[in-house]
Amino acid sequence: MTPILTGVVPPLCTPLTPAGEVDTRSLGALVERVLSAGAAAVFALGSSGEAALLDDAQRRTVLATVVEVVAGRVPVLAGAVDMSPARVLAHARTAAALGADAVVVTAPFYVVPHPDETAAHFRRVREGGGLPVVGYDIPSSVGTKLDARTVLALAEDGTLAGLKDSSGDLNALRRLLGALRERGLHRTFSVLTGSELAADAALLAGAHGIVPGLGNVDPDGYVRLYEHARAGRWAEAAAEQDRLAALFALTGTGDPAAMGAASSALGGFKAALHLLGVIDCPATAPPLTPLPDGAGAAVRRILQEAGLL
Amino acid sequence: MTPILTGVVPPLCTPLTPAGEVDTRSLGALVERVLSAGAAAVFALGSSGEAALLDDAQRRTVLATVVEVVAGRVPVLAGAVDMSPARVLAHARTAAALGADAVVVTAPFYVVPHPDETAAHFRRVREGGGLPVVGYDIPSSVGTKLDARTVLALAEDGTLAGLKDSSGDLNALRRLLGALRERGLHRTFSVLTGSELAADAALLAGAHGIVPGLGNVDPDGYVRLYEHARAGRWAEAAAEQDRLAALFALTGTGDPAAMGAASSALGGFKAALHLLGVIDCPATAPPLTPLPDGAGAAVRRILQEAGLL
Amino acid sequence: MTPILTGVVPPLCTPLTPAGEVDTRSLGALVERVLSAGAAAVFALGSSGEAALLDDAQRRTVLATVVEVVAGRVPVLAGAVDMSPARVLAHARTAAALGADAVVVTAPFYVVPHPDETAAHFRRVREGGGLPVVGYDIPSSVGTKLDARTVLALAEDGTLAGLKDSSGDLNALRRLLGALRERGLHRTFSVLTGSELAADAALLAGAHGIVPGLGNVDPDGYVRLYEHARAGRWAEAAAEQDRLAALFALTGTGDPAAMGAASSALGGFKAALHLLGVIDCPATAPPLTPLPDGAGAAVRRILQEAGLL
Amino acid sequence: MTPILTGVVPPLCTPLTPAGEVDTRSLGALVERVLSAGAAAVFALGSSGEAALLDDAQRRTVLATVVEVVAGRVPVLAGAVDMSPARVLAHARTAAALGADAVVVTAPFYVVPHPDETAAHFRRVREGGGLPVVGYDIPSSVGTKLDARTVLALAEDGTLAGLKDSSGDLNALRRLLGALRERGLHRTFSVLTGSELAADAALLAGAHGIVPGLGNVDPDGYVRLYEHARAGRWAEAAAEQDRLAALFALTGTGDPAAMGAASSALGGFKAALHLLGVIDCPATAPPLTPLPDGAGAAVRRILQEAGLL
Repeated sequence: MTPILTGVVPPLCTPLTPAGEVDTRSLGALVERVLSAGAAAVFALGSSGEAALLDDAQRRTVLATVVEVVAGRVPVLAGAVDMSPARVLAHARTAAALGADAVVVTAPFYVVPHPDETAAHFRRVREGGGLPVVGYDIPSSVGTKLDARTVLALAEDGTLAGLKDSSGDLNALRRLLGALRERGLHRTFSVLTGSELAADAALLAGAHGIVPGLGNVDPDGYVRLYEHARAGRWAEAAAEQDRLAALFALTGTGDPAAMGAASSALGGFKAALHLLGVIDCPATAPPLTPLPDGAGAAVRRILQEAGLL
Repeated sequence: MTPILTGVVPPLCTPLTPAGEVDTRSLGALVERVLSAGAAAVFALGSSGEAALLDDAQRRTVLATVVEVVAGRVPVLAGAVDMSPARVLAHARTAAALGADAVVVTAPFYVVPHPDETAAHFRRVREGGGLPVVGYDIPSSVGTKLDARTVLALAEDGTLAGLKDSSGDLNALRRLLGALRERGLHRTFSVLTGSELAADAALLAGAHGIVPGLGNVDPDGYVRLYEHARAGRWAEAAAEQDRLAALFALTGTGDPAAMGAASSALGGFKAALHLLGVIDCPATAPPLTPLPDGAGAAVRRILQEAGLL
Repeated sequence: MTPILTGVVPPLCTPLTPAGEVDTRSLGALVERVLSAGAAAVFALGSSGEAALLDDAQRRTVLATVVEVVAGRVPVLAGAVDMSPARVLAHARTAAALGADAVVVTAPFYVVPHPDETAAHFRRVREGGGLPVVGYDIPSSVGTKLDARTVLALAEDGTLAGLKDSSGDLNALRRLLGALRERGLHRTFSVLTGSELAADAALLAGAHGIVPGLGNVDPDGYVRLYEHARAGRWAEAAAEQDRLAALFALTGTGDPAAMGAASSALGGFKAALHLLGVIDCPATAPPLTPLPDGAGAAVRRILQEAGLL
Repeated sequence: MTPILTGVVPPLCTPLTPAGEVDTRSLGALVERVLSAGAAAVFALGSSGEAALLDDAQRRTVLATVVEVVAGRVPVLAGAVDMSPARVLAHARTAAALGADAVVVTAPFYVVPHPDETAAHFRRVREGGGLPVVGYDIPSSVGTKLDARTVLALAEDGTLAGLKDSSGDLNALRRLLGALRERGLHRTFSVLTGSELAADAALLAGAHGIVPGLGNVDPDGYVRLYEHARAGRWAEAAAEQDRLAALFALTGTGDPAAMGAASSALGGFKAALHLLGVIDCPATAPPLTPLPDGAGAAVRRILQEAGLL
């Protein structure tokens, strides 16, 4: 995490076999594909990676595979998402042992935490886990939002090395970025947006990088978007963002209302990767359900319109 | 509303006398100030105007004053925010009679509506009110968000002339803008963001204009931001946005947790306008409460840091 | 409100003509029906009365009619539900002038209030309105819940004479009742539940009365339930409650997901009252929509199964 | 689970040593205490047991201890609460191997599920786990509520043997109980309320039993409440409930706003058990934080007022 992490950091999907096991060959192919596109780092075992649905052995397989395939070319971020703080710590230690470069950690969930409890949690993982910690702000999954006061304190004392913001709240992100700049922390604390549809906006506001689930399907597009932004070509960045926003229709091919939003979105990403020949099987893990018959045609059409097929 | 509305549209504060009546002199001064700054239109009787807290006579006074002072130099949008659809229609007719150019209307509230009921509500106001209708998407006040399907249908059939998006959801805004472009509606349907902190981002995504409450205090800043954006000077737009984000600290001088967010925000705007010599009295309407002693010093400091004092 | 209000207080529906005007004949018939059944008071212009959807003249007609028909036989509570505190106060004064015995007032809404602002709002209505004030806790409509600390303070200083609890939170209600008893306020402060399905439970917890929307359709059932409870015949009260819970299926004949919950519920009540011959027309006010064809048969069947037809 | 489970089922706290390990002696003493009081079953590894904060070995120790101490005197329910469906299944199998009589399972969380995905999840645990499954409806922790349609389908096809309702929504509970009775499922499907403050109300509505966290502290009180209810002595049941509602102030001795509601509630229960001499140490597991100094005096006073000290 030194120098500070910037650029496109795809949150890798976890390809599965029809039997539900981790498909390491496909995972390796996916890693190679995003590295070829110019990913600045990869993020294994995040929400796009269905980490919450994998058991410990599967998580280990995923991370070991990713570290091995990456082979030091870029940093590897590892999600340490779990319900029990003890387990989060264990995941962090496993990640360190397997050679990851940082862990990504959410606020506690199931037991609703106070902000001070969340801060103490991050401190324990930082002290006991042996790796830099990136805070993962994902209220749609954990039920609470990381507040700016907490994040600033943890940035200031070095507990957190950065933030992955999947809250969708650009107003809050801008205020946080302003406060970081005021304190001179913008140069050492990496702010990454998880937004697929407002990545250009987050970069314009001063975010350092992007962690887009859709970047599994079109890593080149997000790298172009990022490069445009870095070079100050904002109109081009926005045009690329618009193209990617159209591609985001992949998340709706399964009808979120009828089958669940996660099944539809991750199913759409994996169906696209399967059609593109990157992964061998589009299966997702239970409780997610497969896309309905007929969604395949929609996925194909969307990929064609986006120029990917 | 022809040609399509673009640019900065300040949602005017409603200056009040110590006795709680509309201070028409101060209101006129506020209007002249935003027009001098280059406002493309003004929006009277919105949330920043405390419309929900004024009685019918006060609303009428506000709108008559604004129309008279503007004197045709720019369009006047009038909020028709009320709980009863019958009253919304009455407000729309009053606005037409007083010479407003469009009305701004929310989804029904208190009685939680179905999206189809919301659509029918907009159609009734369009048909019966005699003015173009701008949809007002403000879930924090009304409890529901206007969904894209409904907005698109109403844009397509001409019920709505535009949208004021105060939802803070830039992802949804981008998808809506994409869908409007796909249907060729981007040239006739005006999308205005109510976001004070992500105005640059909304413009980058293709929004036509900005309706920033903070624009009462610094209309020049928002006009500069908009002009930068229109000219493609996005880095300059973002820098201006960062400056305005710092100025937005005005909303926190009263401590939102201790006194309520609306009291703190509107009290901060009015205290600033009072210190700047624009309005005679910083009072807000009940149930809002005055800023605590000591907030004045904070307001002064923030204005000084922003170069306004 | 002296002695303290207890018993069944139907929140009267507002019968409308096909043209959307208040049908005073039907309203009178409805009042007579609930008084014959043994209602302890009536509540005009509440949520079941579509008060939020009526204009001022219609509200006045409703209240004048109810006061005239009741003719002093029981107390008349009048809703003073509005978005602007000034208007709430005006409604309260109108209610006093028309002869109502108390007004029912919610927390401010649209502008999200701080609890202290809500308390001050109630105090202003009490001081300026001329009538006892019953707090109306209805978070589904106003977005905030009245907290126990605020209610206790307002009960203690005499601002509120009682509470209509439509929050559905029986745990909170029990804690409030315990705190009122501890302070000796249980004898002077009337707690009324708005719950149609847990009225027996609220009475068992110590509530003084019931304000059930479904009591428009079956006032006799709720009076029986209340009398059983007052006499300590709890098993009989629960059996009556179970029967009324089955009758509550009236709220679902229009399919809440397809048309909106309020349209389905109020449409179901009015369709039942029409079938029972109490009101002349089942129309509801915009933005509510009529029940679909075919719902009538379901309404008839539910009434028959409940022994009302 | 045959015959159907009824009565008081304390969700056992998990006593910890100062070092954070499971204190099996104290756990055994707690089990003996609730059995002496007349508990109909015990529920290990629920929310009151901090299951979400324990690692797998600790969970195993808890369950093995409880099964051994209970020694067949009553059924043992075991929580199988986890984020990954694979792990939930593993917990269920462990529970079967250790001799539990049923597992208690929530809807999936972190990944937001569709109701059909939740139903399939319960079916997989039923088929693969080897034990009867009780559904655990706890929206405050998992973010979704089990809907009646899903529960009824799972009751009908035998997937679920019962429901622990910790939703606090008594209206929904009553409608569910009515629907179960209509289908004749009330005799085979056990409905248990998790409400500490409305247990009498849930029993009056037809619930079969109570799973009160506060029952760790005062099992005798809840058994008295249940026995009164079973015998139709509802006024006595309500009086006991009122006494227990006062005792529930234990959950507030730590100030929920300042330290987090879970820390305050579980800390209060454990401080009480410690003062009562049941457990050796009042520690809770991270991220929960200890009660502040001075809370001990409040705990003592509350216990004294409730007649427990």
